[in-house]
Amino acid sequence: MLQIADKTFTSRLLLGTGKYPSFEVQEEAVNISKAEILTFAVRRMDIFEPSQPNFLEQLDLEKYSLLPNTAGAKTAEEAVRIAKLAKSSGLCDMVKVEVIGCDRTLLPDPVETLRASEMLLDEGFIVLPYTSDDVVLAKRLVDLGVHAIMPGASPIGSGKGIINPFNLRMIIEQSSVPVIVDAGIGSPKDAAYAMELGADGVLLNTAVSGAADPVRMAHAMKLAIEAGRLGFEAGRIPEKDYAVASSPNEGLIT
Amino acid sequence: MLQIADKTFTSRLLLGTGKYPSFEVQEEAVNISKAEILTFAVRRMDIFEPSQPNFLEQLDLEKYSLLPNTAGAKTAEEAVRIAKLAKSSGLCDMVKVEVIGCDRTLLPDPVETLRASEMLLDEGFIVLPYTSDDVVLAKRLVDLGVHAIMPGASPIGSGKGIINPFNLRMIIEQSSVPVIVDAGIGSPKDAAYAMELGADGVLLNTAVSGAADPVRMAHAMKLAIEAGRLGFEAGRIPEKDYAVASSPNEGLIT
Amino acid sequence: MLQIADKTFTSRLLLGTGKYPSFEVQEEAVNISKAEILTFAVRRMDIFEPSQPNFLEQLDLEKYSLLPNTAGAKTAEEAVRIAKLAKSSGLCDMVKVEVIGCDRTLLPDPVETLRASEMLLDEGFIVLPYTSDDVVLAKRLVDLGVHAIMPGASPIGSGKGIINPFNLRMIIEQSSVPVIVDAGIGSPKDAAYAMELGADGVLLNTAVSGAADPVRMAHAMKLAIEAGRLGFEAGRIPEKDYAVASSPNEGLIT
Amino acid sequence: MLQIADKTFTSRLLLGTGKYPSFEVQEEAVNISKAEILTFAVRRMDIFEPSQPNFLEQLDLEKYSLLPNTAGAKTAEEAVRIAKLAKSSGLCDMVKVEVIGCDRTLLPDPVETLRASEMLLDEGFIVLPYTSDDVVLAKRLVDLGVHAIMPGASPIGSGKGIINPFNLRMIIEQSSVPVIVDAGIGSPKDAAYAMELGADGVLLNTAVSGAADPVRMAHAMKLAIEAGRLGFEAGRIPEKDYAVASSPNEGLIT
Repeated sequence: MLQIADKTFTSRLLLGTGKYPSFEVQEEAVNISKAEILTFAVRRMDIFEPSQPNFLEQLDLEKYSLLPNTAGAKTAEEAVRIAKLAKSSGLCDMVKVEVIGCDRTLLPDPVETLRASEMLLDEGFIVLPYTSDDVVLAKRLVDLGVHAIMPGASPIGSGKGIINPFNLRMIIEQSSVPVIVDAGIGSPKDAAYAMELGADGVLLNTAVSGAADPVRMAHAMKLAIEAGRLGFEAGRIPEKDYAVASSPNEGLIT
Repeated sequence: MLQIADKTFTSRLLLGTGKYPSFEVQEEAVNISKAEILTFAVRRMDIFEPSQPNFLEQLDLEKYSLLPNTAGAKTAEEAVRIAKLAKSSGLCDMVKVEVIGCDRTLLPDPVETLRASEMLLDEGFIVLPYTSDDVVLAKRLVDLGVHAIMPGASPIGSGKGIINPFNLRMIIEQSSVPVIVDAGIGSPKDAAYAMELGADGVLLNTAVSGAADPVRMAHAMKLAIEAGRLGFEAGRIPEKDYAVASSPNEGLIT
Repeated sequence: MLQIADKTFTSRLLLGTGKYPSFEVQEEAVNISKAEILTFAVRRMDIFEPSQPNFLEQLDLEKYSLLPNTAGAKTAEEAVRIAKLAKSSGLCDMVKVEVIGCDRTLLPDPVETLRASEMLLDEGFIVLPYTSDDVVLAKRLVDLGVHAIMPGASPIGSGKGIINPFNLRMIIEQSSVPVIVDAGIGSPKDAAYAMELGADGVLLNTAVSGAADPVRMAHAMKLAIEAGRLGFEAGRIPEKDYAVASSPNEGLIT
Repeated sequence: MLQIADKTFTSRLLLGTGKYPSFEVQEEAVNISKAEILTFAVRRMDIFEPSQPNFLEQLDLEKYSLLPNTAGAKTAEEAVRIAKLAKSSGLCDMVKVEVIGCDRTLLPDPVETLRASEMLLDEGFIVLPYTSDDVVLAKRLVDLGVHAIMPGASPIGSGKGIINPFNLRMIIEQSSVPVIVDAGIGSPKDAAYAMELGADGVLLNTAVSGAADPVRMAHAMKLAIEAGRLGFEAGRIPEKDYAVASSPNEGLIT
C-alpha cells in the first residue's frame, strides 16, 4: 500500500493525463492501469470553463485522487499561484510541485522547488515535489516536511529510463516519506527497475500516452510496477562475476 | 502464444528446477509462475531410481512439458547420450542442448553445441540449444533447423542481466524460430527487458530459486514477462536526448 | 589552455594531495602528472604549524597554483571560515567550495554550496564550487558568477566513473565558465570520457593516490586527459546501430 | 612491448588504412599514431597493378609491418585464397582472418573463422583471427595455435565501444597469446578501456579515418592506448558503492 499523507492507495502507478490521442484512449488507459492518482497540468486544464470539454469532467471523482502539477511555473510564486488555482476548484488538496529551470531539458530548479515546497507546506497543501536525483536536495525536501518526493529518472519525455540508479537508491534509503520515481521512464523494464530499487511508486505519462498503443502500454506498466515491487520484496540474487551453475554437479549420474 | 515445434504454450516463462530450498517451495514457485515448461538437469535427476524421491514424481505431467537439459556435457557425444537417457524415460521429446566450454564462466562451447544440435536433430529430437549471444552462431543454429534458440543474457547464475542488448536484438530479428533468453537474468527488470527486445520467452532458474523468497520472485517474474511482452507489442516511445514536455505549453491558461 | 579567472594553465589535470603512501610518492606523482593546480583540504594542512612537516612546504610555489578546498564544512559559514583561513596564508586566492550534505555519500549540499559561493564571491575569492551533476544547480552557480564549476562524476572516492554523461554534457554546453569534472573518476578511461564530453579539466585524487602504483597512474591520467581533449577536438564518429565496413566492398578484386 | 609470433612492437596501436579522406591525411595519421602494424583489405588493394597508385607504395616498408585482412571472404576457402594472394606479394606473412557471417552487422562467422585459421596455420601463416567476444570461441582459437586473437568490442564501424567488458576480460584472462581488441572502438575512452581490461593492443580504423580530424584523432588514440596500458599496469582503485573521502577527517584543524 502506498501512503501519502493520510491517503492510502492500492496502486503504485501514478498516471499523467497529457497528450493522449483521444479521451477514449485515455479513459481506457486509465482504467486498465488501475491508477488511483491522476496528475494533470493545471495550466492546461480549464477547470472553470464549462463550455470546454475536458477529461476531468468525465472522471468518477470518487474513484480517483487528482494530483495537479504546476507545469509552466518558473518561480516558486508562480507554482504557488497555480497550486491555489487548482485547490480553489475543490477537487484536490495535493499538488505536484514542478518548477522548471531549463527549457531545453525541462529539468527542475532546485532552489525554486525548495522555496515553492516550503510556501505550499505553509499553506497547508499536501506537497509532492518533482526534483532531480540530487541526493542532498531530496533530503532537504524531506526535512522540509514534504509528503513524498518525486525524483526524475531522466528528463521528462526522454524515455531514457534510469540513468543513475545509485542516486535513486540513496534517495530511497534516506527518505522517510514515499519516493515516487517521476519522469524519463521509457518502457516497462524501467518502471520495474525503479520499484526494484525500492521506490514506493512510479509516475508515468509520455511512456504511456506516446506509445503506439497507449492502452496496452498502460497494462504493461501496471504489471511491470507490480513485478518490480514483488521483486524488491522477494530479495533478488546478488550479481556475481563468475557463473554459478543452477544445475550443480554434485550427485551427477555418470 | 509461444510455439515450439508443434507445441503451443500460453506462458512465456520457462522455469528451471534446480537448487530450491525445498520441494514445497519449488512446487509453490512453479504454481505461481504459471510456467508450462520445466527444465531440469538429466544428470541430477535419477529418473530410473524409484527409491529416491524427486520433483518429477510429484508433477502432474499432463500440465507441464519437460525440457531436460544436458548440463554436465562437455562434448556433443556426451550431450547426445544424456538427451537419449532423458528420452528413454518416455517423459519428453524436447531437449535443451547445453555443452559448457569454460568451467569458470559456464559459457557454452559453440562448436560442440552446433555438433550436438545437428546430431540430435538427426535423431528426431526437438532441439533447443543454449548458446552465447554470438549473432552468427545463432543464425547457424537456426539454419541447422533447431526448434528454438536460447542465447544467454550473461553467465549462468551471475544475475548480471542483459549485458549486450544489441546482440540479442539482432538474434531476435534474424531468427525464424522462437528466441528464449536463457541464463544471467537477475531480477524482473531483466526479464521484462528481454521481452521488450522481442524475445519469445525467458528461461529462469537461479534468479527464482536463489531469491530470498523464491515464491514471491516467481510471481514477480511471471508479471515481468507479461509486462515486457505487452510493452513490446505496445510499441515504446523512442529515446530522446532532449526533453519533451508531457504537459505541453500550447493552450496554457496564464 | 585552461583559463580560470585571469590565470592560464597548460595542464587540464588538477591533482589532489590527500592520502598518498608517502611524500616522495606524492611528489613524483605530481611531477609526472604535469598538474599545475594542486588541491588540498585546508583543515588537514596545518599551514601555520611550522613544526609539522607538510607537503606544501616542499612545493616550489612558483610552479604550482594552490586550490584549497573547504572539505569538512557542512555550512556556508564554515566554508567561508575555512576559505579565509587558507587565504590568510598568502598562498592562494582560489578556493574549491566543498560543503558536504551527506556523510555517507559525501555528496554536496546544493543550498549551502550556493550560499557559500555567493558569500565567497562577495569577499573577492576566485570561487570553484564542487557540485552534484544537477543541471539547473550548475546553471545557477554559473549565473552567480563563479569562476569554474566542478560537477562530480560520481561520489568522492567511489571510482564509479561517469554515471550520468547526459547531465555532464548539458552542464558543459550551458556553462560560460570552465567545467572541471571532479570526484568519482576511477581510471584513465573515465578521465578521457570527461574530456570527450567537452570538459575543460578533470580533478583527481583517490584514483591516483589510491592506485597500486600512484606515480604510474598519475602518468596514465595525464595522457588520458590529453587523449580525451584531442578526441573532443578531433570530432568523434557517430554511434551507429548497424555496422559500416571500414573496408568497403566497392572496387574489390575478385 | 607487444609480441606477435617472433615480432616485437613498441606500439600497441594497429591502424587500418581504409576510407581516409586522402593519402596525405592517411600518411599523417599513420605517422602521428606511431603505429607499427598497418592493416588493409587485400581485395581493395591492387598490389599487382602498378598503374594504380596506392598507399602501400608510399610506405617505408622497413618501418611498418603489414597485416592484410581477408575482408570480403564469406568462407574459409575464400579467406585462404585472399591470404595467399597477399603473401605472394612478398610483403607480409601475417594475416588477419576476417570471415563475415552477417551482412548487416558484419559480425564474424565463428565456424568459418575457426576453419580458416586452422587452414592458414597449416600453411605456415602468422594468423590473427577477428572474432566475436564469445569466450569459448576465443579459447578454441587460442588452442588451435593462432598467434593473437582479435575480439570485437562491437560491430565494425559502429563506434559503440565496448559493449561487453565482462567477456573481453574473460578472453584476456584465458588467453596465452596477445589479445587485440578490434572493431567498434568509437573514441579514445573506448581504446583506453580496452587496454585497462588488459588487452595487449587495439586495432582501429573508422574511429580514426572517419573522425572530423583524422590526424588529431590518431594522436588522441595513441595517447589513449598508452594511458590505458599504464592504467592497467598501475592497478586502479576498486569501485565502491559508498564514498571514501580523499580528504579524510582525521587530524582536522577545527
